[in-house]
Amino acid sequence: MKISAFTVEDVPMIQKGDDLAKIVADRACLENDDIVVFASTIVSKAEGRRFLLDAIEPTAEARELALLNKEDPKFIQYVLDNSTRVLLKHPLLVQTIYGNVCINAGIDRSNTESGYILLLPEDSDRSAREIRDRLKELTGKTVAVVITDTNGRSFREGQIGVAVGCAGIAAVHDRRGDVDLFGHELKITIQGITDEVASCANMIMGEANEGTPIAIIRGYRYVKDDRGIKVCYRSDETDLVKQALYEKL
Amino acid sequence: MKISAFTVEDVPMIQKGDDLAKIVADRACLENDDIVVFASTIVSKAEGRRFLLDAIEPTAEARELALLNKEDPKFIQYVLDNSTRVLLKHPLLVQTIYGNVCINAGIDRSNTESGYILLLPEDSDRSAREIRDRLKELTGKTVAVVITDTNGRSFREGQIGVAVGCAGIAAVHDRRGDVDLFGHELKITIQGITDEVASCANMIMGEANEGTPIAIIRGYRYVKDDRGIKVCYRSDETDLVKQALYEKL
Ligand SMILES: Nc1nc2c(ncn2[C@@H]2O[C@H](COP(=O)(O)OP(=O)(O)O)[C@@H](O)[C@H]2O)c(=O)[nH]1
Ligand SMILES: Nc1nc2c(ncn2[C@@H]2O[C@H](COP(=O)(O)OP(=O)(O)O)[C@@H](O)[C@H]2O)c(=O)[nH]1
Ligand SMILES: [Mn+2]
Ligand SMILES: [Mn+2]
Ligand SMILES: [Mn+2]
Ligand SMILES: [Mn+2]
Repeated sequence: MKISAFTVEDVPMIQKGDDLAKIVADRACLENDDIVVFASTIVSKAEGRRFLLDAIEPTAEARELALLNKEDPKFIQYVLDNSTRVLLKHPLLVQTIYGNVCINAGIDRSNTESGYILLLPEDSDRSAREIRDRLKELTGKTVAVVITDTNGRSFREGQIGVAVGCAGIAAVHDRRGDVDLFGHELKITIQGITDEVASCANMIMGEANEGTPIAIIRGYRYVKDDRGIKVCYRSDETDLVKQALYEKL
Repeated sequence: MKISAFTVEDVPMIQKGDDLAKIVADRACLENDDIVVFASTIVSKAEGRRFLLDAIEPTAEARELALLNKEDPKFIQYVLDNSTRVLLKHPLLVQTIYGNVCINAGIDRSNTESGYILLLPEDSDRSAREIRDRLKELTGKTVAVVITDTNGRSFREGQIGVAVGCAGIAAVHDRRGDVDLFGHELKITIQGITDEVASCANMIMGEANEGTPIAIIRGYRYVKDDRGIKVCYRSDETDLVKQALYEKL
C-alpha cells in the first residue's frame, strides 16, 4: 500500500464565517476518497468560537484550580464551563462536554489573538459532515473529513494528533473475525483508524507558526460510515481509568 | 509539506535469525532520511522471542488473573513475568519491564504459530539502532528506524500504532520557545512525533493477514537523536494516572 499526505498551501488567517471547504477547493485538486483533515483550531475560528478572556467571572473553584495550575482564573472558568467533570486537578484533565477527555477542555490560546481563547467546535462531527457536504457541492468529489486536535496521553510524554470529529470515515475499524497470517481469528483488534489518520496529518501540520492547518491524505482505503468520532469515546461506566481518577479526587 | 508512506512488498514469514535490514535492502530503494518502520512482531520473531506457552508453570496470582480475564493461566504468567506492576486487573494493564505501559505486556498470540507466544523485543531501542546501522552498511543510506506495536489508549476505543523503539529520530520534538502565528511563545507543546510516525505506518501495515510488517515514510523532516523512545515513558513518580490506578488496586 502507498499513500501520500500533503498540506494545503497558502491558507489565510481564518476568520469567523470563512468557508473552509471553499478555501480547500480553491487551492487543491481533490480526488474521490481523499481524506481532508482540518486542525480544530481553524474550524473553531470559522465557527466563531473565539471569546474574550475577560468576558467571564471566575468562581471559587476556578480560582483554586488556577492557583494550583499557575493559570488565569478566567481561563480555568472557561475550562470548567466546557467540562462535565474534573479527572485530574493538575494538570487539569477533564471530561469535556464534547465527549472527549483532555487537558484544559481543548481550549487554545496559541495561534489566536492575545486576550482571546478558542473553544473546540460545538459538535465537531456535525462540522465535519457540513464541510464534507460542502466539498461535494463545490468539487463533485466524495471525500471524508476529519477534524483534529493535539492531545497528551496517559503514560507517555509528547502530544499527538487525535480526531475530535469525522464524517465519511468510520472512527474505528473492527477487525474481530478477520484472520491472521496463520488463519486464526482476531479476537480483540479494533483499529483506531481515524485517530491514526489524525496523527499522520498532525505530524505534517505542525504546532507553531507553520500556517498549515489543512492536510490531505490520498490513497488510503478506509471503511466508510457517518457515525462520527463519538462512538470511540468510552463512557464513565466502561472506562476503568476514568473511574480510578474520579475515586482519587 | 508532502510525505509518502508505503509498505515493503513480498516480506517472507520471519524466522529466528533473519536479517531484517537485508530483507528491506533487497526489496526497497532507500533514500537518505527515510524513516523505516518495523512492526515489533517481526523484530521479535527475528530475535527469537517466541516461546512455547506450555513451557511455563502458572502461579496462584496468574490463575486468579486468568479467571478474571477468561485467559490461559500460562499466558498470564508470561504477562506477569514481563511486568513490574499491575495497573488494572481486567483488562490486564501492566507496567512492562521494557518501560511502556500496555495490555498483556505487549505479548502477542496473533500472527504466530498456535501454542506459542511472542514477547516484545528485549530492548527495542537497541534493536532499532542495530537495524539502522545494518541498513547503513548494506545501502550506504542514513535512515531512521522506528519499531511499533499496536496499543489501546485510555478514554478512547480503538487501538493505534505507537513506537516501542527508535533510532536516528527524536522520540519527541520539544517546541517550547517556538512562536505561534501571532508571535507568542509556545509554553507546553512537546510533539510526540515518533508515535505519530508509528500511527501513520501502522495504519498502512494493518493488523491481520496483510503481510506487510515494514513501512517506509519518505519526505518528512524530523529531529535526529539516538536517545530512543524510553525518554517518553513517564516514571511512576511523575505519572498521576499510574498513581491513581496503583491506589485503586
Ligand atoms: N494558515 C493558517 N494556519 C493556521 C491558523 N490557525 C492555526 N494554523 C496552523 O495550523 C496548524 C495547527 O495549529 P494548532 O494551534 O496546533 O491547532 P490545533 O492542533 O487544532 O489546536 C499549525 O501549522 C498552525 O500554524 C490559521 O488561522 N491560518
Ligand atoms: N510478511 C510478514 N508479515 C507479517 C509477519 N508477522 C506479522 N506480519 C504482518 O505485519 C503487520 C502487523 O502485524 P501485527 O500482528 O499487528 O504486529 P504488531 O502490531 O507488531 O503486534 C500485519 O500486516 C501482519 O500481517 C511475518 O512474519 N511476515
Ligand atoms: Mn488545540
Ligand atoms: Mn496542534
Ligand atoms: Mn503486538
Ligand atoms: Mn499491530
